[in-house]
Amino acid sequence: MARRFRKIAVMTGGGDCPGLNAVIRAVTKTAINKYGMEVWGVEDGYLGLIEDRIHRLHFSDASNILTVGGTILGSSNTSNPFAFPISTNGRTRLTDVSGLCMSNLAKRGIEALIAIGGDGTMASAGEFAKKGLTIMGVPKTIDNDIYGTDITFGFNTAVNTATDAIDKVHTTASSHHRVMIVEVMGRYAGWIALHAGAAGGADIILMPEMPYDIEVVAECVLARSKKGKRFSIVVIAEGAKPKGGSMVVYKRVKNSPDPIRLGGVSSILADQLERVTRLSCRAVNLGHVQRGGSPTPFDRILGTNFGFHALELLAKGATNRLVVWKDGKLGDIPIARTAGKTKTVKRNDSLILAAKGVGTSFGI
Amino acid sequence: MARRFRKIAVMTGGGDCPGLNAVIRAVTKTAINKYGMEVWGVEDGYLGLIEDRIHRLHFSDASNILTVGGTILGSSNTSNPFAFPISTNGRTRLTDVSGLCMSNLAKRGIEALIAIGGDGTMASAGEFAKKGLTIMGVPKTIDNDIYGTDITFGFNTAVNTATDAIDKVHTTASSHHRVMIVEVMGRYAGWIALHAGAAGGADIILMPEMPYDIEVVAECVLARSKKGKRFSIVVIAEGAKPKGGSMVVYKRVKNSPDPIRLGGVSSILADQLERVTRLSCRAVNLGHVQRGGSPTPFDRILGTNFGFHALELLAKGATNRLVVWKDGKLGDIPIARTAGKTKTVKRNDSLILAAKGVGTSFGI
Amino acid sequence: MARRFRKIAVMTGGGDCPGLNAVIRAVTKTAINKYGMEVWGVEDGYLGLIEDRIHRLHFSDASNILTVGGTILGSSNTSNPFAFPISTNGRTRLTDVSGLCMSNLAKRGIEALIAIGGDGTMASAGEFAKKGLTIMGVPKTIDNDIYGTDITFGFNTAVNTATDAIDKVHTTASSHHRVMIVEVMGRYAGWIALHAGAAGGADIILMPEMPYDIEVVAECVLARSKKGKRFSIVVIAEGAKPKGGSMVVYKRVKNSPDPIRLGGVSSILADQLERVTRLSCRAVNLGHVQRGGSPTPFDRILGTNFGFHALELLAKGATNRLVVWKDGKLGDIPIARTAGKTKTVKRNDSLILAAKGVGTSFGI
Amino acid sequence: MARRFRKIAVMTGGGDCPGLNAVIRAVTKTAINKYGMEVWGVEDGYLGLIEDRIHRLHFSDASNILTVGGTILGSSNTSNPFAFPISTNGRTRLTDVSGLCMSNLAKRGIEALIAIGGDGTMASAGEFAKKGLTIMGVPKTIDNDIYGTDITFGFNTAVNTATDAIDKVHTTASSHHRVMIVEVMGRYAGWIALHAGAAGGADIILMPEMPYDIEVVAECVLARSKKGKRFSIVVIAEGAKPKGGSMVVYKRVKNSPDPIRLGGVSSILADQLERVTRLSCRAVNLGHVQRGGSPTPFDRILGTNFGFHALELLAKGATNRLVVWKDGKLGDIPIARTAGKTKTVKRNDSLILAAKGVGTSFGI
Repeated sequence: MARRFRKIAVMTGGGDCPGLNAVIRAVTKTAINKYGMEVWGVEDGYLGLIEDRIHRLHFSDASNILTVGGTILGSSNTSNPFAFPISTNGRTRLTDVSGLCMSNLAKRGIEALIAIGGDGTMASAGEFAKKGLTIMGVPKTIDNDIYGTDITFGFNTAVNTATDAIDKVHTTASSHHRVMIVEVMGRYAGWIALHAGAAGGADIILMPEMPYDIEVVAECVLARSKKGKRFSIVVIAEGAKPKGGSMVVYKRVKNSPDPIRLGGVSSILADQLERVTRLSCRAVNLGHVQRGGSPTPFDRILGTNFGFHALELLAKGATNRLVVWKDGKLGDIPIARTAGKTKTVKRNDSLILAAKGVGTSFGI
Repeated sequence: MARRFRKIAVMTGGGDCPGLNAVIRAVTKTAINKYGMEVWGVEDGYLGLIEDRIHRLHFSDASNILTVGGTILGSSNTSNPFAFPISTNGRTRLTDVSGLCMSNLAKRGIEALIAIGGDGTMASAGEFAKKGLTIMGVPKTIDNDIYGTDITFGFNTAVNTATDAIDKVHTTASSHHRVMIVEVMGRYAGWIALHAGAAGGADIILMPEMPYDIEVVAECVLARSKKGKRFSIVVIAEGAKPKGGSMVVYKRVKNSPDPIRLGGVSSILADQLERVTRLSCRAVNLGHVQRGGSPTPFDRILGTNFGFHALELLAKGATNRLVVWKDGKLGDIPIARTAGKTKTVKRNDSLILAAKGVGTSFGI
Repeated sequence: MARRFRKIAVMTGGGDCPGLNAVIRAVTKTAINKYGMEVWGVEDGYLGLIEDRIHRLHFSDASNILTVGGTILGSSNTSNPFAFPISTNGRTRLTDVSGLCMSNLAKRGIEALIAIGGDGTMASAGEFAKKGLTIMGVPKTIDNDIYGTDITFGFNTAVNTATDAIDKVHTTASSHHRVMIVEVMGRYAGWIALHAGAAGGADIILMPEMPYDIEVVAECVLARSKKGKRFSIVVIAEGAKPKGGSMVVYKRVKNSPDPIRLGGVSSILADQLERVTRLSCRAVNLGHVQRGGSPTPFDRILGTNFGFHALELLAKGATNRLVVWKDGKLGDIPIARTAGKTKTVKRNDSLILAAKGVGTSFGI
Repeated sequence: MARRFRKIAVMTGGGDCPGLNAVIRAVTKTAINKYGMEVWGVEDGYLGLIEDRIHRLHFSDASNILTVGGTILGSSNTSNPFAFPISTNGRTRLTDVSGLCMSNLAKRGIEALIAIGGDGTMASAGEFAKKGLTIMGVPKTIDNDIYGTDITFGFNTAVNTATDAIDKVHTTASSHHRVMIVEVMGRYAGWIALHAGAAGGADIILMPEMPYDIEVVAECVLARSKKGKRFSIVVIAEGAKPKGGSMVVYKRVKNSPDPIRLGGVSSILADQLERVTRLSCRAVNLGHVQRGGSPTPFDRILGTNFGFHALELLAKGATNRLVVWKDGKLGDIPIARTAGKTKTVKRNDSLILAAKGVGTSFGI
C-alpha cells in the first residue's frame, strides 16, 4: 500500500528555463490542496540542500508565479553533492556531502524530494535514490535533448523567442541583399535550430548532428543570389560544427592575459561565408534571451502536467521515477534510464524530411 | 506501383485558421521542388471549384507566406458541392454540382486534390473520393475538435491569443476586486477554454462538455472573496451551457424587427453572477481575434508537417486519407473515419486532473 | 525656501491603467533614494484614505514592479471623500469625510500626498489642496482625454493592444469577404480609435467627436466591395454615436428584472450594417483587455518621468500642481485647470488629416 | 503660387528601419488619392537613381504594407551620387553622377523626389536641391540621433525590442546570481540604451555620451551584490566607451589574414567586469534584431504623419525641407540644418535625471 507523505520538498537545478515556476506551482498547490502535505522549497538547487537553505512553501507562495520566467527557488549550475569541492588548508578536495543533504531533509521531517533539473541533477537524483531517499525527477532542458521524454518545458518558449528573432531579421535581410546568420541555443542537439529554422522559413539550418560543409552552405547562398533572391537566412545551433573541424570560440590574443571570447559560431561562419561568397553576411547571437521571458501557454501546461504527475506518483508510493511526455501522453521511466544519454535529432526526423521537402538545406 | 501525378490542386475550406498558409506552402514547394509537379490553387474553398476559379501556384507564390495568418487562397464557410443552392425561376434548390467540380479539375488535367478543411470539407471530400477523385484531407479546426487527430494547427495560436488576454485581464481584476469572465472559442468542445484557462491560471473553467451549476460557480467565487482574494478569473467556452438549460445569445426585442445579438455567454454569465454574488463582474469576449494573427512556430511546423505528409501520401499512391498527428507522430486515417464525430474533452483528460489538482473549479 | 518633507504618501484612484506601478516606483525610489523621505502607500484610492488603510512602502516594495500592469496599491472607482455615502438608520447620506482623511495622514506625520488618478481623483485633490493639504496630481487615463497634458501613460499600451487585435482580425477579414468591426475604449474621446485605427490601417474610424452617418459608413464599405476589396475594417470607439441618435447598449427585456447588457456599439453597428449592406459583418469588443498587460516601454518611461517630476515639485516646495507632458516635455499646471474638461480629438488633428490623406473614412 | 506636381518619386536610403513602409504608403496613397499625382518608386536608394531602376507605384502597391518591417523599395547603405566609385581600366575613381540621376528622373517627367533616409541621404539631398531638384527629406534613423527632430520612426520599435530582451534576461539573471550585459544599438548616441535601460529597469546604463569608469561600474555591481541582490542588469550602447580608452571590437589575430570580429562591447565588458568583480557576467548582443519586425503603432503613426506632411509641403510648393517632429508636433526645417550634426543625449535630459532619481548608475 502506498505510503502517506506528510512533508515533501521541491528543488530546481541547472540552467534557467521558462516553466520551472509552473512545476513548482503544480507541486505545491496539488500537495497542499489535494493531499494536505506540507511543502518545502530548497534554494539554489543542490547547493541549498548542502547549505541547509530550505524554507516552507505556502499555497500563496505558489500564486501568481505561473506566468513568471525563471524559478522562485533560485538555481545553481554546478553543485554535485556526491563530489562537492571543499577547501581545507588551501587544498580543494571533491567530497561526498550527500549524507549532509539527507540529514538536512530528515531533521525537518521531509520524506521525499521532487528534483527538477537536467542531466546533472538527475545523475545525483539517481544516487540519492540508491541511498534510500524517496525522489522524483522532473526533466528540464531548454535544448529538448533529455533522453526518455519527447518534449520538455522551456523548449517551446525558446523556439518562439528564436523564431521571433528570425522573423525580425527577415526584414533586414530582405531590404539589404544580405545573408543573416542567426545563432540559437543547442550545444549537443539541434532541436531549437531545427524547429525555429523550420518555423522561421530559414534557407539553411546547421546543427551539431550534421556537421556542415562550408562549400555546400556557400553554394546554397550563391544559388539563391543567382536566382534573384535578395537574401538568405541561416540558422545555426551554438554547437554546430563544420565537417572535420570544430569552431574556435575562444582565442588567446597577444597582450591579453585571458583568452578573448569571440562572438560565437555565427560570427565565425559570417566571416567564413563572407570571404567565400563575397556577399555581405551578418551574425546575430540570441544567447540568454532564449532562456528568459514568460513561458508560453504550452510550457505552462507542460510544467503543470509534469508537476502534477510527479505528485501523483509520490502519492501512489513510487520513487526514483522521471516524469516524461511520451507518444502524446504523460508517463514516467526509471531515473537511471535517462542518465548519460542525449536525445539528438535523427536524420529521418519527420521535420527534417519536411524541411528538405520545401527546399531547406542542412549544409551537407 | 504508385502512380505519378503531374498536376495537383490545393484548396482551403471553412473558417479562418492560422497555419493554413504553412500547409499551402509545404504542399506547393514540396510538389514543385521534390516531385516536379504542377500545382493549382482553388479559390474560396469548394466555391472556387464550382465557379471554376482555379489558378496556377508557382514556387514564388508560396514564398513569404509561412508567417502570414489566413489563407492566400481565400475560403468560404458554407459551400457543399453535393447540395449547392441554385436558384431557378425564383426557387432555390439544393443541387449536386460535384460533377461540375470534377470536370473543372479534369479540363486542366488536375489529377488530385488536397483539401484542407474541417468537418464539412471532409464530408464532401469523402464523397468526391467515392466518385473516383484522388483526394487527400488535411484537418483544420481552431477548436481542436476534429476526431482522429490529437492536434490541429491554429489551436496553439488561438490558445496563445486567449492566454495573453487572460494574462492581461488578470491585472485589471487584481487591482479592482472584480470577477473577470473571458469568453473563448469552442462551440462543441472546450479545448481552448481548458488550455487557455489552465495556462492563464483561471480559477474557474466552463466548457460545453461539463454543463455548469451557477451555484457552484458563485460559491467558488464567494469562497475566494472570503479568503481575501481580490479577484477571480472565469474562462468560458462560447458553447458552455448551464446545467439543464441553454444560453440565449440572441433575443427578440420589442420594436426591433430582427433579434438582437447579445454579448455572448460571457455577458449573460456576468449578469447572472453579479446578481447572485453581488460582486462586480465584467465580461470580455475575444471573438474573431482568436482566429487571426501570425501562426505560432508550433502551428507553422504542424502545418508544414501536414502539408508535406499529404504530398508524400499522394506520391505513394494513396487516396482518401486524412493526415493526422496521433500519439506524438504524423500518421493518416481514412477520411470517412472522422466524419460526423467530434473530439470532445474527456472528464479524465490529464489536464483536467492537473487543473483540479491545483484547485481549478469546473463549475460542477 | 522649500520646505523639507520627511513623510509622503502615494495613492492610485480610478480605473486600471498600465504604468501606474512605474509612477509608484519612481515616487518611492526617488523619495527614499534621493531625498531620504519615508513613503507610505494608500490602499484602494481615496477609500483607503477614508478607511485608514495606509502602509509603509520600502525601497524593495518598489522593485520588480516596473513591468507589471495594474497597481500594487489597489484602486477604487467611485470614492469621493467630499461626498461619501454613509448609511445610518437605513438611510444613506453623502457625507464629507475629508477631515477624516486629513487626520489619517496627519496622525502618521504624513505631510504630502501624491494622487495618481483621473478627473474624479483630481477634483477631490483640488478640494484637499484648498483644505491645506500639500498635494501633487499625476494624470491617469487610458483614454488620453485628460485636459492639460498631451499624453498620459497607459494610452500607448492600450493602442498597442488594440492595434494588435486589428492586425489579427485583418487576416480573418481578408480570407472571408467580411466587414470586421473592432470596438475600442474611449467613452468621450476617440484617441484610441484614431491611433489604433490609423496604425492598424482601418478603412473607417468612428469616434465620439464625429457622430457618424450610417449611410456614409455603408457606402464606404460597399464602394470597397465594388472595387474588389474582399474586406473592410471598421474601428469604433465605445462612445461613438450615430448622427442624431445614441447607441442603446442596455435594453430592458421582458421577463428579465434587470436590463440586459448588449454587446456594445460594435454589435449594434454590425447588425445595422449587415442589414444595409447585405455583407457579412462581425463585431469584436476588446473591452478590459485594453486596460491590462505589462506597460509598453513608452508608458513605463512616461510613468517614471511623471513620478519623478511629482517628487521634484514636492522637493521644490510646490503644491496643488498636476504633472503634465506638454509640447514634448515635462511640465506642470495648477490641478484646478484640468477640472471638468475633456481633451477631445479636434477635427484638424494632424493624424485625422493624414488618415484622410491615405483614404480613411470617418463616417461623415 | 504653389506649383502643381503631376509626377513624384519616393526613395529609401541607408540602413533598415521599421516604419519605412508607413512613409511610402502615406506618400503614395496621399499623392494618388488626394492630389491625383503619379508616384514612382526608386529601388535601393540612390543606387536605383543612378542605375535607372525606377518603377511605378500604384495605390495597391501601398496596400498591406503598413505593418511590414523593412522597405518595399529596397535600400543601400553607401551610395553617394556626388562621389560614386566608377572603375575604368582597373582604376576606381569617385565620380559625380548626380546629373545622371537628375536625367533619369527628368526623362520620366518626375518633378520631385521624396528622400527618406539618414545623415548621408540628407547630405546628398541637400546637394540635389542646390542643383534645382525639388526634394523633400524625411528623417530616418533607428538610433534617434538625427539633429532637428525630437523623434524618428523605428526608434520606438527598437526600444520595444531591446526592452523585451532586457525583460527576458531579467529572469535568467534573477535565478542565477549573475550580471547580465545587454548590448543595444547606438553608435554615436545612447538614446536606445537610455530608453530601453530605463524601461527595463537596468541598474547601469552605459552610453557613448558618458564614457564610463569601469571601477564605478564594478563598485555598483558589487554594492548590489553586498546588499543581497542576486543580479545586476547592465545596458550598454554599441558605441559606449570606457573613460580614456576605446573599445576594440576587431582584433588582428596571428595566422588569420583578416581581423577577427569580436563579440562587441558587451563581450569585452563582460570579460573586464568578471575579472574585476569575480561575479559571473554574461553578454547578449541584440544586433540586427532591433532593426527588424513589424513597426509599433507609434512608428506606423509617425511614419504616416511624416509621409503625409512631406506631401503637403510639396503640394504647397516648398522644397529642400526636412520633415520633423518638434515640441510635440509636426514641422519642417531646411535640410541643410541637419547636416553634419548628431543629436546626442544631454546629461540633463529629463530621463537621465529620473533614472538617476530611481537609483540607476551611468557608470561615471
